[in-house]
Amino acid sequence: MSKITPVILCGGSGTRLWPRSRADKPKPFLPLVGESTLFEATLRRCAGTDRFTPPIVVTGAKHLEHVEAQLGAGESGAQAAVIVEPAARNTAAAIALAALRLPEDAVMLVCPSDHHIADSAAFTAAALAAAELAAQDWLVSFGIEAKTPETGFGYLKRGAPIAGCGTAGPGSQVAQFVEKPDLARAEQFLASGDYAWNGGIFAFRAGFFLSELARHRPEIAAAARAAVAGGHAEGRRFHPDAKVFADIKSESVDYAVMENTARAAMVPADMGWSDIGNWEALHAARPHDAAGNHVSGPAELVDCRNVLVDSDGPRVSAIGLENVMIVVDKGEILVTTASGAQLVGKLHGAANQ
Amino acid sequence: MSKITPVILCGGSGTRLWPRSRADKPKPFLPLVGESTLFEATLRRCAGTDRFTPPIVVTGAKHLEHVEAQLGAGESGAQAAVIVEPAARNTAAAIALAALRLPEDAVMLVCPSDHHIADSAAFTAAALAAAELAAQDWLVSFGIEAKTPETGFGYLKRGAPIAGCGTAGPGSQVAQFVEKPDLARAEQFLASGDYAWNGGIFAFRAGFFLSELARHRPEIAAAARAAVAGGHAEGRRFHPDAKVFADIKSESVDYAVMENTARAAMVPADMGWSDIGNWEALHAARPHDAAGNHVSGPAELVDCRNVLVDSDGPRVSAIGLENVMIVVDKGEILVTTASGAQLVGKLHGAANQ
Repeated sequence: MSKITPVILCGGSGTRLWPRSRADKPKPFLPLVGESTLFEATLRRCAGTDRFTPPIVVTGAKHLEHVEAQLGAGESGAQAAVIVEPAARNTAAAIALAALRLPEDAVMLVCPSDHHIADSAAFTAAALAAAELAAQDWLVSFGIEAKTPETGFGYLKRGAPIAGCGTAGPGSQVAQFVEKPDLARAEQFLASGDYAWNGGIFAFRAGFFLSELARHRPEIAAAARAAVAGGHAEGRRFHPDAKVFADIKSESVDYAVMENTARAAMVPADMGWSDIGNWEALHAARPHDAAGNHVSGPAELVDCRNVLVDSDGPRVSAIGLENVMIVVDKGEILVTTASGAQLVGKLHGAANQ
Repeated sequence: MSKITPVILCGGSGTRLWPRSRADKPKPFLPLVGESTLFEATLRRCAGTDRFTPPIVVTGAKHLEHVEAQLGAGESGAQAAVIVEPAARNTAAAIALAALRLPEDAVMLVCPSDHHIADSAAFTAAALAAAELAAQDWLVSFGIEAKTPETGFGYLKRGAPIAGCGTAGPGSQVAQFVEKPDLARAEQFLASGDYAWNGGIFAFRAGFFLSELARHRPEIAAAARAAVAGGHAEGRRFHPDAKVFADIKSESVDYAVMENTARAAMVPADMGWSDIGNWEALHAARPHDAAGNHVSGPAELVDCRNVLVDSDGPRVSAIGLENVMIVVDKGEILVTTASGAQLVGKLHGAANQ
């Protein structure tokens, strides 16, 4: 089998994990779980086997500094390519840029850079299985094993098994892409066992992805092709034509391609995945003491349960709290319940950066 | 009737309202309710009628600077006397010092400086009633109308009415002094209507107080007398003899005198009183919006009820909280439930100042 090229999508608005995450240094570039940043951990995960080539990172100009600082000095980082998006145009366009910079037969593994995956070996296994299907011209989503009735994720309904997908693991067609459900439906999905979370991790053969994009969204495909044709390289950076790129329609790859193609497949992935989508999710991904508390920075907790304290300096003294997250960062203090964590992005401080 | 001399007791360890209140600037000297500090409000309350003389303030050396800065330039403040305690020896000794600096027939109105009283007129009325009884050699406590079954206060059980206590209002003997009760007893007290809170406000004739102190605690009386005899004046300040004073036993006036005297009396006082004994009490004393929230400093509250935010600078963004107090002061952040507020004084930050 040919090698797999990680395509790492790197961006973010820095609102949902505000005030730690900010517009000028969003989630991927912060050490939110452990000592590595989520971006660094993504790079490392995609260098976990000799089946991976050095990555292509797709990012915006405003994050380029963080990307290049964190690519690191290792072989994979030194050989990484960076595509600098002139504007944020969602995942369909971003993936198209990377596909256009690769040989047609290259297999791309598209990874967000702001997720946490506890089990790297399970990730690698799923990636190899997905790559094998992608090489057979399936457009493959990771079907992340649903653990709870989440209403914040899209779901994949498992369809017919795909025969002959080799030794790397089971694969199946996607019977249906389901947008974020309400709680009752999410509970049905979980109980049925037929649904997996759509984690936004994909494997595609570059040429087949581009042909399917051209079939379902010809204007995005054409504009991306023109932006690459009119672009220029600068060392390892590639700059698509800014004017052409700015006119591309902003659509997710799910909406533009995956929901329309007849070749949608999925591979199961049970790998301790979290999108770290808000402070509650981040709290869940971090280690806890016996009372379910997690502390980063100076703090004293008295009679607290399931409390997160994350302070960049000031001491936090907390008494009697349950299911509360307290975050202190550069003069901003957030105190939210676990259920309130979904509203953080709407706060003045987060929304008006 | 003769005039009444306010004796204002000024101290505190700065633990229960930490981190706003600190050892070096405790509760009396902070503008906790409204724009005046509690000490300033106490001074103003005790200058509310021409029946009051300028006050005697009893304080420790470490708070002298705050006392003199806040005495103000008014007539009452300019004429105030200050007794500088060489050490903190509780209220029996502090009141004895003031009594010894007054003529025997002076009526003293002893007031803590860290309480909030919403209704000054009711305070004045109670003070005049208490003074009238004190002039007849009763040792008079304010019996503060109990509103809730508080377990953090001592209680006074109402005894026989005192006949002929004049026009200023009803007075009665104290049938019993009750230490802080448990909740069941506190509820009984409240239901019976026979009990009032002991708020630590007293009226005494100076000479009679000293004679009762000498009867029940002769060693405290003698030591206080010696400390004053060996003391020296310095402008309006009076410094008792430090060595003699340091040897005085530390006892509350309740324990040393009130619980032992046969001449204990009480006057009812329904005056919007709070001892501001913790952040929950302070929250209750402040104005609220329709959701029961109070904000001082920059803050955004979303889906919050009965939340206090008090910040000296950093913005506090709070989501989904109920019955929580958030206090930010000089790099310390306190987040406590209402019931947890009683534990604030035990926090490392508060206890190890």
